[in-house]
Amino acid sequence: MRDQSAAGTLSRAGDLFQLLRDGKARTRAELASTTGLARSTVASRIDALISSGFVGAAGEAASSGGRPPSRFAFNPSARIAMAVDVGAMHVVVALTDLNGTVLSEERGDLEVAAGPDVVLDWVIDSGSRQIRQIGRPASSLTGIGIGLPGPVEHSTGRPVNPPIMPGWDGFDVPARVQSTFDVPVLVDNDVNIMALGEQATFWPGDDNLLFVKVATGIGAGIISSSRLQRGAVGTAGDLGHVRVPRGEGVVCRCGNIGCLEALASGPAIAKSLSEIGLPTAGREDLLEHVRHGRIQAIQALRQAGRDVGDVLATCVNLLNPSVIVIGGSLSHLGEHLMAGVREVVYHRSLPLATSSLRIAPSMAGDQAGVLGASRMVIEHVLSPANIEAAVAPNGEN
Amino acid sequence: MRDQSAAGTLSRAGDLFQLLRDGKARTRAELASTTGLARSTVASRIDALISSGFVGAAGEAASSGGRPPSRFAFNPSARIAMAVDVGAMHVVVALTDLNGTVLSEERGDLEVAAGPDVVLDWVIDSGSRQIRQIGRPASSLTGIGIGLPGPVEHSTGRPVNPPIMPGWDGFDVPARVQSTFDVPVLVDNDVNIMALGEQATFWPGDDNLLFVKVATGIGAGIISSSRLQRGAVGTAGDLGHVRVPRGEGVVCRCGNIGCLEALASGPAIAKSLSEIGLPTAGREDLLEHVRHGRIQAIQALRQAGRDVGDVLATCVNLLNPSVIVIGGSLSHLGEHLMAGVREVVYHRSLPLATSSLRIAPSMAGDQAGVLGASRMVIEHVLSPANIEAAVAPNGEN
Repeated sequence: MRDQSAAGTLSRAGDLFQLLRDGKARTRAELASTTGLARSTVASRIDALISSGFVGAAGEAASSGGRPPSRFAFNPSARIAMAVDVGAMHVVVALTDLNGTVLSEERGDLEVAAGPDVVLDWVIDSGSRQIRQIGRPASSLTGIGIGLPGPVEHSTGRPVNPPIMPGWDGFDVPARVQSTFDVPVLVDNDVNIMALGEQATFWPGDDNLLFVKVATGIGAGIISSSRLQRGAVGTAGDLGHVRVPRGEGVVCRCGNIGCLEALASGPAIAKSLSEIGLPTAGREDLLEHVRHGRIQAIQALRQAGRDVGDVLATCVNLLNPSVIVIGGSLSHLGEHLMAGVREVVYHRSLPLATSSLRIAPSMAGDQAGVLGASRMVIEHVLSPANIEAAVAPNGEN
Repeated sequence: MRDQSAAGTLSRAGDLFQLLRDGKARTRAELASTTGLARSTVASRIDALISSGFVGAAGEAASSGGRPPSRFAFNPSARIAMAVDVGAMHVVVALTDLNGTVLSEERGDLEVAAGPDVVLDWVIDSGSRQIRQIGRPASSLTGIGIGLPGPVEHSTGRPVNPPIMPGWDGFDVPARVQSTFDVPVLVDNDVNIMALGEQATFWPGDDNLLFVKVATGIGAGIISSSRLQRGAVGTAGDLGHVRVPRGEGVVCRCGNIGCLEALASGPAIAKSLSEIGLPTAGREDLLEHVRHGRIQAIQALRQAGRDVGDVLATCVNLLNPSVIVIGGSLSHLGEHLMAGVREVVYHRSLPLATSSLRIAPSMAGDQAGVLGASRMVIEHVLSPANIEAAVAPNGEN
């Protein structure tokens, strides 16, 4: 095992580890039988995984006589991950174990518009503080996942022309964070992160999931064949500027006519309600209107749902997901938006594609971002190649 | 190497083989250095791959003195694959090598409506005949890929409610073909197959490609992250029944209003031209009209392109492909359809998503089906797990 540089396809301790990630305890003999590897080989790899901490002893197995064989299992407490969810008006920093279970969390009322220095300094301070508070050494941090409220070039972690993030365009987010924490830092846009969090936590059996955020903007995170799909230049899922039938004559801030966002986003609904004599400054006003049963507000949410549904009907025909999850601030205002989405999707999509389709509200809610950021970084650090590198003896790598 | 049942993640000769599939010749030392495997291990695996024929000696490498080390490379002639393209009115059976190069081909004017017995008997006869003609033993056949003009459950190879294929619903296509050829038989719908063929042959560097067929029906094959995406129940890419803005009041054969197919398919264009006094019975008439520069026909194709483009604009925002390939019989009638597609996609899609987007006519043309069927089965038989099984010593597997 000299050169590990291209060992991804052939890594061995890393591959053995993937078998154990389901949490089931196994003996060396079971691992040898499942993998076809010699018992001596399995033994040495398990030893390496145990010294790294990623695998631990997990009680004794039943034996047909003599000393019972030891069983081994994935140890999710071996390391901690930092998960960061940056929204337009808030930042959440959490620490999780390697199963994505949140160990600690802090929320700050920062605006992303304050710029990357202010926001990332707070992230670094909060992360350092929480690591001390839970009593773990800094060396136990294995990676950091960050979600940002705008387009991000995932391969470099730099925002690309983010509309609501002055000062962030092209900023090297990983480098800034790595000046304090020398670990992998992965960055993606908030909707992709939320899709990952929702799928990993609540829909692990669904390999084809569409997460749609309906809030100030409208966008989607696409999981196809169990993988987050970012597209050729990372813009996949940008549904806000798809034209909808009702959009005739409505000008969008992007300059086009009839975009979904110009009709069904929070600001669009607030504007249309204010124009018909129901003053609506933001989400709280809208919630008040709905609580008081004001029919125009309920109709506006229902119609926004229909507009979103019109675009999603096309997405269903194109992608054939088994689940559509609707999240974002507008999804929490009762059933009216969801009802409009369901009405149009079940009317307009192919019968075969909707026969087993579920359309559900986000269950992760405010936690979706943090859960997804944690998931993104855990999948990276626990990949076969990275585990292989992590357990390789010092100096051999 | 006892139990190979779950060896996929840990297979070794199979993984080594993947490195060689690029066609580049390598020495044992180069393979050992790239993979981190011991030279003795590499040597025994290369021996197994050589006895199976999948790898062959490929000339001598330069040496710093002494006997030059041998170099090894993938041998695409090791086996042959059978590729079958069943259309509404034709069947093509081809033999290819393991690079997908066509060695032999036969076309039959059969109608798919003749039913699976007639069609598959002809496929079996033609395949057997061609194997004899090229002088290869029957044992060199490694697998069969089949494309059908309707929905197929890929996991079982059975058509699912195919509208133009009486007698095929639920028919066990693989079992019927395997009664003569005892090899893996993979079946998929024609549009998915064409997407594979086009991508593998002409766009190998593009991991996000959308292939759109515009003919009697309209559908798409989606390749995202280098993988064909079939969706949760296999209906992904079914664009024919997406609603388009111009569709107001137009009833589709599916019962819905304003579907793309009701406006932009071959029959829809023929009907609209006939209604305005330009009798059009089929594709040949349409071609005649275009050749004679009849303005209504040119306008109709251009408008059909705009309608297709309207749906594709949404697909571009959703999937962010780097290439859209337009195929099918209507794509070969000059530039009018393509011009309409480009006009609307570049107008309606996100600037970032279209900045590097190419919209190109199918280059594989009539060959797309056969090239894709070959590619589908080659990817299967040359996967790490299947190569591992193929090179395992007799009786151990």
